[in-house]
Amino acid sequence: MKATIKDVAELAGVSFKTVSRVINKEGSVKPETLKKVNDAIAQLNYQPNTAARNLAGTTSFALGFVYDNPNAYYVIDMQNGILDECRDKGYELIIHPCSATSQNIIAEITDMVKRSQLAGLIISPPISEMPEVLSALDQLNIHYVRIISGSDESKEHSPCVFIHDKEAAANIIEHLISQGHQRIAFISGDKDHRSSDERKQGYLDALARHGIEFNPAYLYDGSYSFETGVEGAKYLLGLDEPPTAIFSCNDEIAAGALFAARLQGVDVPCDMAIAGFEDSPFSRQTWPKLTTAAQPTNEIARKAASGLIQHLIGLRSGRNKTAAIPHQHFQPTLLVRESTLKEACPEPEL
Amino acid sequence: MKATIKDVAELAGVSFKTVSRVINKEGSVKPETLKKVNDAIAQLNYQPNTAARNLAGTTSFALGFVYDNPNAYYVIDMQNGILDECRDKGYELIIHPCSATSQNIIAEITDMVKRSQLAGLIISPPISEMPEVLSALDQLNIHYVRIISGSDESKEHSPCVFIHDKEAAANIIEHLISQGHQRIAFISGDKDHRSSDERKQGYLDALARHGIEFNPAYLYDGSYSFETGVEGAKYLLGLDEPPTAIFSCNDEIAAGALFAARLQGVDVPCDMAIAGFEDSPFSRQTWPKLTTAAQPTNEIARKAASGLIQHLIGLRSGRNKTAAIPHQHFQPTLLVRESTLKEACPEPEL
Repeated sequence: MKATIKDVAELAGVSFKTVSRVINKEGSVKPETLKKVNDAIAQLNYQPNTAARNLAGTTSFALGFVYDNPNAYYVIDMQNGILDECRDKGYELIIHPCSATSQNIIAEITDMVKRSQLAGLIISPPISEMPEVLSALDQLNIHYVRIISGSDESKEHSPCVFIHDKEAAANIIEHLISQGHQRIAFISGDKDHRSSDERKQGYLDALARHGIEFNPAYLYDGSYSFETGVEGAKYLLGLDEPPTAIFSCNDEIAAGALFAARLQGVDVPCDMAIAGFEDSPFSRQTWPKLTTAAQPTNEIARKAASGLIQHLIGLRSGRNKTAAIPHQHFQPTLLVRESTLKEACPEPEL
Repeated sequence: MKATIKDVAELAGVSFKTVSRVINKEGSVKPETLKKVNDAIAQLNYQPNTAARNLAGTTSFALGFVYDNPNAYYVIDMQNGILDECRDKGYELIIHPCSATSQNIIAEITDMVKRSQLAGLIISPPISEMPEVLSALDQLNIHYVRIISGSDESKEHSPCVFIHDKEAAANIIEHLISQGHQRIAFISGDKDHRSSDERKQGYLDALARHGIEFNPAYLYDGSYSFETGVEGAKYLLGLDEPPTAIFSCNDEIAAGALFAARLQGVDVPCDMAIAGFEDSPFSRQTWPKLTTAAQPTNEIARKAASGLIQHLIGLRSGRNKTAAIPHQHFQPTLLVRESTLKEACPEPEL
C-alpha cells in the first residue's frame, strides 16, 4: 500500500495543509515542523505524485521552457540554468523548442500549455519578443517570465529578465577604438532577434560618441551562424577600403569571419581585429581566441526560473495574489582576448 | 464549460474507448471513424489533459530523457530527434541530465521516474551503460530504451540502439593507412564511456590487420574535451619519434589537437593528419575541416523514441503484453575532409 499525504500528516501530527506546504517547498514552515514532516515522509517512503499534484486544484509542478535558437551552447546553458533551480525546488522541466517563423506558433504554444498543465513558462528570444505570443499566453492566464534584449522596463508589461546588449556592444566598440581602429564593421545576427538591433545600436552609439562617421558599406546583415561570418567577412574584405576591425553579433559569426580571414591570408589581429559576443566555447576554441562580451547565460536562466518559482510559491501560499514577478537585469561584460590585441604585432608601415 | 471525452464520444457517435484510441494515437482506428472523432474534437474544441491522462490507470504521456554528456551539440541533436517523434505522437519530453559519477544517481533517477509518472525513458551513454542504473529501473517496472556503443546483442538483456563505433573507428584508421601513415596515435575519450573502448578497439584491430605494431607511447588517455586534444597533441608532438597521424576519439578532441599542432607550427595535413569522430559542427568549423565518422545522432535518438512509443502503444492496445522493443543498429560512416588528405601537399623530402 502506497503512503498518502494523509498518512504523513497523521504520523507527523500536523495538518494536511502543513504537509502540503513542505512538499511544495513553500518555505513558510518552522524548522521543527519541517523536520517532523520530513521524518514522516522518510519513514513512510512517501512519494509525492507529480501527476496527482498537477490535478489538485491549480497547483502544478512542471515548468516549460519555450525557445527557438539554433545555437546549441546557448540552449544547453539555458536548460542547465533552469534545471539547477528546478532540482532545488522540486520541479520538472518540459522543453519545447519551436519555430518563431511557424504560422502555427500560437496554436502550438497554447496546446502545449493546456495539455501539460504547466505551472509556468520561461521564454527566451526571439519568442519572448513576439507580442502575439504574449497576448495568447495572457489569455490563458499562465504565469511566465521572459528573457529579452533591452533595458527599458517602461516598455514591457510582463515580467522580464533584461539583457543590456546595447551597452555591452558599445563597450566592445570602445575597446576596438582604443586599439586604434576607426574603420569598424558590424556583421548582424537574425533580424527577428531584438539582440541584433540592440547590439547594432550599441555599435552606432559608440561610433557617434567618438565622432566616427558610420559607413553603411561596413554593415552586413545576416543570421546568427558561422556561415554568415564567412560570407560577411568575404564581402567586407572585398571592399575597396576594407575595415580594419569587425564586430560580429555573436561568437559563431566571429568564428566564421576568422575562418574567412584566414582563407584570404589576412592576419588576425595584426591586419584585422575580430570580436564576437556571448563568450560561448566558440570564442575560446578559435585561433586566436576571440574578444567577446561575457553573457552569463546559465545564471540568467537560473534567475528567470527562480523569479518564476518564487512567484508561484507566493501565489499558492496566498502571500501575493496579484504582485508581478520583479524585473531583473544583466549586463554582459567585456572580455579582451588575442583576436583584437595589437601588442604582439609588428609596427605598422607608414 | 470544458468539453470532455464523453462529449466527444457522444457527438461522434462512437464509444469512449474509440475516442481514447484516437487521442492516444494507437493507430488501430478505421479512417472514417478517425475523421468522425477528429471532427467532433475540433467542433467541441476538446483538449486532452495530459495530467488527467497520466492518472488514468497506467497510461502516461511523458517521456523522460536521461543523459550525462558535456557535448552541447550531441545533447541538442538527441533532444531534437526525440522531440520530433514526441510531437508526432502527442508526447511531452521531460529532460533530466545527471552526473554518472554522482553517488546519488540511482536515487535521483528513481525519484524522477516515480514523481513524474513517466511512460518511458530514453537513456544515452554513459548512463545507459551502467548496470546498477538498469537494475534499479527494472525494479521500477519502467519501460526504457538505451543508446549504447557496441554491436553484440547477446550481451544486452534490455532494448538497445547499438552504435557500431568499433567498425567506424577501424574505417578511419584504414583511411589513414591508405594515406601512407604507419605511425598513428590515438587520443581517447572518457574511460566511463564505452565508446572510448570501442573506438580504441577499432584502432587496434585496423593496425593489426595491416601488420602495424601497436606503440603504447602513441596512446593518450583523456576525456571528451577540447583540452584533452590540446594536451594529447602536445604530448605526442613532444615524443622523440612523433606520430604522423592522430585519430581523436571525437571532433572536440580533434579540434583541440589541431589547435595544439598550429601552436607548434605543425602543418595539418602535410606534416600531421588529424581525424575526429561524430561529424559535429566542430568538424566543419576548424581549419582545415576534419575527417570524421558521421554519426546521425538526431536520427538515432528519433529511432530510439519511436521504438519506445510503438512499444507503449502496443502495450496499451493489448497487442503486445510482453514483447520487447526490438534492437536497432547504426554504423557511423567515414567522412574524408581536408585534415587527412595529402593531395595538395608538397612531395616529402627523402
